[in-house]
Amino acid sequence: MQQLKKIDKVLPEIMICGRSLDIFLDDIERFHGFTSPGLVLGGFMVDWAQELIGLDVEADAVVETCHCLPDAVQIFTPCTIGNGWLKVLDWDKFALTLYDKRKLNGYRIWLDLKKTLLFPKIYNWYMRRVPKKNLSLEALLEEILSARRSVLSCRAVQVTRMYGRKKKGNIEVCSTCGEAYSTSQGDQCITCQGEGYYSI
Amino acid sequence: MQQLKKIDKVLPEIMICGRSLDIFLDDIERFHGFTSPGLVLGGFMVDWAQELIGLDVEADAVVETCHCLPDAVQIFTPCTIGNGWLKVLDWDKFALTLYDKRKLNGYRIWLDLKKTLLFPKIYNWYMRRVPKKNLSLEALLEEILSARRSVLSCRAVQVTRMYGRKKKGNIEVCSTCGEAYSTSQGDQCITCQGEGYYSI
Repeated sequence: MQQLKKIDKVLPEIMICGRSLDIFLDDIERFHGFTSPGLVLGGFMVDWAQELIGLDVEADAVVETCHCLPDAVQIFTPCTIGNGWLKVLDWDKFALTLYDKRKLNGYRIWLDLKKTLLFPKIYNWYMRRVPKKNLSLEALLEEILSARRSVLSCRAVQVTRMYGRKKKGNIEVCSTCGEAYSTSQGDQCITCQGEGYYSI
Repeated sequence: MQQLKKIDKVLPEIMICGRSLDIFLDDIERFHGFTSPGLVLGGFMVDWAQELIGLDVEADAVVETCHCLPDAVQIFTPCTIGNGWLKVLDWDKFALTLYDKRKLNGYRIWLDLKKTLLFPKIYNWYMRRVPKKNLSLEALLEEILSARRSVLSCRAVQVTRMYGRKKKGNIEVCSTCGEAYSTSQGDQCITCQGEGYYSI
């Protein structure tokens, strides 16, 4: 991504999630393993949501896809899967919401397809209208960095479900394997019921 | 956690996931927001799994709870939710597996309750036998740092499900909201079917 960083020279003023473009791209690569277009676009989404809600508000997050976007929230906000402040919905919608964790009001930001008409590379990438091998990652990333918020829309929302920390179930010892498990699974843990993901 | 770091003086030799204890605890706090006992224990689990599988093997991960443990994998390995190399199962089992992403063989590590008999604070914390307000976080963390692998068990496994990148569904435009969604949800997206998490 050496070439991409040259854009920093052209857009010296750009700040995303409180970072210069260089640091923004470095943070993505270090956590995610590579500079994914979805994550760069996701950075602009988080940036906008943070600006709308205000940095002084303690915000929780919902992301509506498990592809790429959860990492934008995990890199650029305090919300992670493990601390429970980020919920991930496997809906394949390129959208996220940051909301006040007490008042439950916040902002949903999404990739607005109508607005991608002026940015055909973004449209073709997201809607998979062009095979991956024919997509230049470099050109796509440049289009995302040029489009920024102009391919996104936002709306004020009130969160009505999925908020709060997910409570642990009632923890007991599985009578078969002897490991701790949540009794909501029944008399045995899921693995001992034959629904595990491994063989020994 | 200033006091805890004093243990570094007592255990100067300890290295966890390639880090000194100081850096290990700092990395946890920076990503997760606080020094959670589950994440410190999780660091020892990742450390053991990495040693068994070898650092030269490209490993994917499965974690069997959504509480704390996913962050240990995200901090100390290249696997994240967003890049698809980490799968999180909401089973409330304190266990994780690192496995070769091509051959699918690897190691599962879990908190072994039998082995916590010598570490009553760990048992009481995990099994919630003592109310949270009566638990000294400091004392619990000291016990975890003293126990390290001795409360864990490991087993070689072959992963038979849940491996590979989760494929995106067939992406089309929802006829109601106009957003892109996966057609596996039906003729409309889940939100337009009335199953969303927010009101406008």
